Amino acid sequence: MRKIHVIGIGAGDPEQLTLQAVRALRSTDVFFILEKGEVKADLTRLRRDMLDTHLTQGTYRVVEARDPERDRTADGAAYSPAVGDWRSARADIYARLIAEELGEEETGAFLVWGDPSLYDSTLGILEEVLERGAVAFEYDVVPGISSVSALVARHRTGLNRIARPVQITPGRRLAEGFPEGVDDVVVMLDAHQTFQRFAQEDVDIYWGAYIGTPDEILVSGPIAEAAPRIERLRAEARERKGWIMDTYLLRRHPRD
Amino acid sequence: MRKIHVIGIGAGDPEQLTLQAVRALRSTDVFFILEKGEVKADLTRLRRDMLDTHLTQGTYRVVEARDPERDRTADGAAYSPAVGDWRSARADIYARLIAEELGEEETGAFLVWGDPSLYDSTLGILEEVLERGAVAFEYDVVPGISSVSALVARHRTGLNRIARPVQITPGRRLAEGFPEGVDDVVVMLDAHQTFQRFAQEDVDIYWGAYIGTPDEILVSGPIAEAAPRIERLRAEARERKGWIMDTYLLRRHPRD
Repeated sequence: MRKIHVIGIGAGDPEQLTLQAVRALRSTDVFFILEKGEVKADLTRLRRDMLDTHLTQGTYRVVEARDPERDRTADGAAYSPAVGDWRSARADIYARLIAEELGEEETGAFLVWGDPSLYDSTLGILEEVLERGAVAFEYDVVPGISSVSALVARHRTGLNRIARPVQITPGRRLAEGFPEGVDDVVVMLDAHQTFQRFAQEDVDIYWGAYIGTPDEILVSGPIAEAAPRIERLRAEARERKGWIMDTYLLRRHPRD
Repeated sequence: MRKIHVIGIGAGDPEQLTLQAVRALRSTDVFFILEKGEVKADLTRLRRDMLDTHLTQGTYRVVEARDPERDRTADGAAYSPAVGDWRSARADIYARLIAEELGEEETGAFLVWGDPSLYDSTLGILEEVLERGAVAFEYDVVPGISSVSALVARHRTGLNRIARPVQITPGRRLAEGFPEGVDDVVVMLDAHQTFQRFAQEDVDIYWGAYIGTPDEILVSGPIAEAAPRIERLRAEARERKGWIMDTYLLRRHPRD
C-alpha cells in the first residue's frame, strides 16, 4: 500500500520543523512539490534547502509539478465555486502524481507551509483523490507551527485573553465586519489590507510578514498609528520580493 | 542581563518539539518547573524525560516550585478575579525564582505544554513580573505545536472549512451557546463536557485526550452517537490516570 505524509514544515523558519517532521522527511521516498509560479520560487527553494539539510542526497526523489492557475478574478459569492474548480484540477494532478510517480510500496510526502490544518487544501484534495477510487493510499498528518503561532510568538503575546475566545478568519470574511462574539481575531489570506476599515476603532494590531525568515517584518500598536506604516512596509516588501505572505491579530478593547 | 525562554514543547508527543525548541533547551542553564499537584506528576516526568533526551546531564539545573492553588470553587462571574489572584500569586513565585535561582548572566526557561500563545498564562505572568520592576530580564517565545493542531492532525481534518472562520474558545464560554458567526469551534479547558448540550443538533465532534501520548484516545462522529462514548471513555480514563487533558472540535453543518 502506498503511504503519504502531509507534513507541516512551519511558517518559514527552517528550525520550526518538529522532530516528528524530520523523521517523516527521512521515511519519504518521493517529495511532491507543486510550483506556484515564479513569484513563489523562493518558497520552493526553501523547501529544497530543508531536504538538503536533513536528508542524504540520493536517498529520495523530488517530483515537481505545475500548480493549476486559480481564477483569482472570481470574487465575493463566486469565490467558493472557483475554489472548487481549482481543487478539482489539483486533485487531477495529485492523483496522477501518486499513481505514476510513487511505487506501490513507497512513501510520498507533501510539504505544507505552516500547519496542514489551517487554510491549506492538501487534506481536502487527498480525500477527493481517495473518493474517486482510481488510486489507493494511506496517509497521515504531521502538525506544524502555523503562521498564527509564529506571529504571536514573535510579538510575545497570547492569541487569546484570559477565559476569552479567539477567532481565525480569512480576510474576505473580515470585510463583512468585525466578527461577533470575539475581540481577538487573527486574519489570514488577506490581500486587501482589510484591517484598514477598523482604523478608527479602539483596536490594536499585531502584524507580521515573512515571519521567521531573514525578511521578517513586524509592526504592532494601535491600529490608527500602525496601519499607515504597515501599508508602506507591505507595499515596499511586495515590490522588492515580488510576493508577500502576511498575517495579523486584531485585538479590540472589550466594550464591557 | 538575565534571559528567559518560554518554550512550547508540544501537546504530549516528545517528537513534537521543534528544532528551535531543542536549540533553546540547549542554551538554557536553569529550567523552572512548577508542580501542579500529584495528579500532574506524569506531566512533570514527561518534561524531565525531554531534558534527559536532549541535554547532557550536569549542563543544566532544574528548579521545582509548588504552583499556588487556584480557587476552583469560584465560578461564573467570579472566574476572572479568581484567576487574577492566582496569577498574582504565581507572579510572586516567578519573581522569586528568577531573582534567586538565575544568575545575572544566565538563561532560564519555562516549558509550556502545547503553544505558549494558547490558554497559557506564562507570558502574562512574566509581563506582570517585569512591570513590578523588582527583577529585570529579557525573554523570547518559542512557538509549539498546540493541542488544537495535534487534535486535528490525528483526526486528519482541517480546523477550518474553505474560506470560513474557526473559533477557539474555553468550555466555559461554550456553555453560553454555540458561538455566533462560526460553524467550526475548538473547545479547550472544558471540565464539564459542554458538548453534550449540542447532542440534538446537526454537529460532528472530533474529540481527543492525551493526544500524542501512549494513552491517546480519539473519538469522532455525529455528536448524538459520539457523545455517550466520549463520556464513558473520559470517565474511565480519568479514573485510571487520575487526570485528563482533552480538547475537541465541533463542526456544525452550515444552515445555508
